[in-house]
Amino acid sequence: MDSFGFAVLQTEGLARRGLLKTAHGTIDTPAFMPVGTAATVKGMTSDTVAATGAQIVLANTYHLMLRPGAGVVEEMGGLRRFMAWPGPVLTDSGGFQVMSLASLRKITENGVEFRSHLDGAMFKLTPESSVEAQRQFGSTITMVLDECTVPDATKADAANSMRLSMNWAKRSRDAFREREGYGVFGIVQGSVFADLRLESAKALTKIGFDGYAVGGLAIGEGQEKMFLVLDATLPNLPTNSPRYLMGVGTPSDIVGAVKRGIDMFDCVLPTRSGRTGQAFTRRGTLNIRNARHARDPRPIDCDSDYPKLGDISRAYLHHLFKAKEMLGPILLTMHNLHYYQELMQGIRTAIAEGSFQTFASEFYKVQAEGDIEALL
Amino acid sequence: MDSFGFAVLQTEGLARRGLLKTAHGTIDTPAFMPVGTAATVKGMTSDTVAATGAQIVLANTYHLMLRPGAGVVEEMGGLRRFMAWPGPVLTDSGGFQVMSLASLRKITENGVEFRSHLDGAMFKLTPESSVEAQRQFGSTITMVLDECTVPDATKADAANSMRLSMNWAKRSRDAFREREGYGVFGIVQGSVFADLRLESAKALTKIGFDGYAVGGLAIGEGQEKMFLVLDATLPNLPTNSPRYLMGVGTPSDIVGAVKRGIDMFDCVLPTRSGRTGQAFTRRGTLNIRNARHARDPRPIDCDSDYPKLGDISRAYLHHLFKAKEMLGPILLTMHNLHYYQELMQGIRTAIAEGSFQTFASEFYKVQAEGDIEALL
Repeated sequence: MDSFGFAVLQTEGLARRGLLKTAHGTIDTPAFMPVGTAATVKGMTSDTVAATGAQIVLANTYHLMLRPGAGVVEEMGGLRRFMAWPGPVLTDSGGFQVMSLASLRKITENGVEFRSHLDGAMFKLTPESSVEAQRQFGSTITMVLDECTVPDATKADAANSMRLSMNWAKRSRDAFREREGYGVFGIVQGSVFADLRLESAKALTKIGFDGYAVGGLAIGEGQEKMFLVLDATLPNLPTNSPRYLMGVGTPSDIVGAVKRGIDMFDCVLPTRSGRTGQAFTRRGTLNIRNARHARDPRPIDCDSDYPKLGDISRAYLHHLFKAKEMLGPILLTMHNLHYYQELMQGIRTAIAEGSFQTFASEFYKVQAEGDIEALL
Repeated sequence: MDSFGFAVLQTEGLARRGLLKTAHGTIDTPAFMPVGTAATVKGMTSDTVAATGAQIVLANTYHLMLRPGAGVVEEMGGLRRFMAWPGPVLTDSGGFQVMSLASLRKITENGVEFRSHLDGAMFKLTPESSVEAQRQFGSTITMVLDECTVPDATKADAANSMRLSMNWAKRSRDAFREREGYGVFGIVQGSVFADLRLESAKALTKIGFDGYAVGGLAIGEGQEKMFLVLDATLPNLPTNSPRYLMGVGTPSDIVGAVKRGIDMFDCVLPTRSGRTGQAFTRRGTLNIRNARHARDPRPIDCDSDYPKLGDISRAYLHHLFKAKEMLGPILLTMHNLHYYQELMQGIRTAIAEGSFQTFASEFYKVQAEGDIEALL
């Protein structure tokens, strides 16, 4: 079993091409992690997730602790065996979902009490219990419990919230049981305030983690503010550890964040959009439900090298969505996840070749051109 | 391109092991055809359908003529290209679905007028238009238009209905355009009346078809009556043509019908049941939603040789169904279709080895034993 470790192979400006070694496999970075909330990337078998090029998936502690329960997952051999995904798994701490999904939250210095959105049962989440649940899941990468600062928080509130999170980060780190090849990541908070982000980054670096996440972003602040926060935060994180931008984002967010030095991403966009008919392509997004696709024999993306969808026409996908057939969301999720992985592969190759700046310019140019209309 | 042709390789009693050659591939019989109503076997990619062992799929003319329309399917290169299924496709004539789904049906000697259940638009289905739609689909096997006699019809009504169907069968046969490797099947009607079934079989044989289906069964008459109809019908059909029992059935129905000389089957049971949590196994059916599976680490069927599900526990499937995750129906559909194909493979091997009688006895015995409880 390999020890947990990160190596930067090449850099171009602040962008980094790296390798993250774990007990369950090596991840090429910059990497995108598909979201498998309830131990399933919605609509995908683990085979098809792997076929898109994904090397690591994310699952949500909040959902899994409520159903089927951390004990059941542990009993069934851990999350990787449970969902038949042989590669690495990262789990979040549950904090973010408690804020967005649970009712009757009560936050104290010790942790969070909340009612399950499923059946109203009371649960408690502390730094220690979150880390323990993630141990029961057998998560390759454990995230510390943090409080997600609300959008538009005052500076005083953001500071208090961040300092509580730093306290919890220390307790999470202490609760984490070291195992060869497993890691625990801290999470920088501090809302949009550069000095709070700096304070947070320093506090986490002092505790010492296997990787550092940037949290509390992509919650409505907009791309420009998000990038400013990254500009202020990333120079204050260790260069020899992976950096993970949580819950981000659009292809454009990803390219911009890689440029600033981010190594890892997760987002529900490719999967959630795939279920509603939105396809990501080199030329921006398109909605397959639109009538213009009804007789279009072309694949969604003529330039894609994904063999699974080479024979699938837009007309067929349009039909499947109109007929509310499960296969529509399945195929479009496959397409979108593959698009994201192709994007990451393109980014990695470009950094390795020292052509990331050119890659990024070309990316923005082609995205702006938009979809080519069919010749009917 | 091969010509359309059927060869009986071995027989045991009335059971037959055969090969059906078509323009789009050869089918080992007895064969089970998964149902792909709207040009999709629900929840399955064509790759995963093929991985279960299926060699031919069925699609429904009624659904496809309403949406996306036979013209769109033809324009997109036919059904096989549309749904990216390279193998043979059989389409029904639309008659059965008109009876069960459409509103305001008006049956005349000429055909059926009906309102679409989707948008209320008026459609007309005649023997000629059904065959033409199936030609537009590029169907490997075309079915004649028939009127499905209602259950519990009087003998006089059943006779009139059957004779109308024989008239339509002749018109369908005349409308069918011969193409190398494509075939058209007649459909025996006559409800539960042996002499009407005999009359129908003789009428069809006189017209001459590439295969003969038995229709109007599995509509509530029960297995015993169904088998009696087969006993009365099959000896009156040509031995050198394939025989197809439409819409059937349970594993037990299939074993009993093969014993009587049926070569082909289709049924929604494995796919529909898979979506609601019912699994078919050697030991009968089980409902994965049942609480007894919640911590059961075993696969659904320990004896299955299906690699795709070897790592999937009952506990995981139970969780997916409880969480209403799409992957539950997907995996259980895969399982059920594979179970059906394993059953057909077992039947074929047994007939080839002259041990079908033993196979059938063992099948009934193990089905009756039921599921083995987990040792918890």
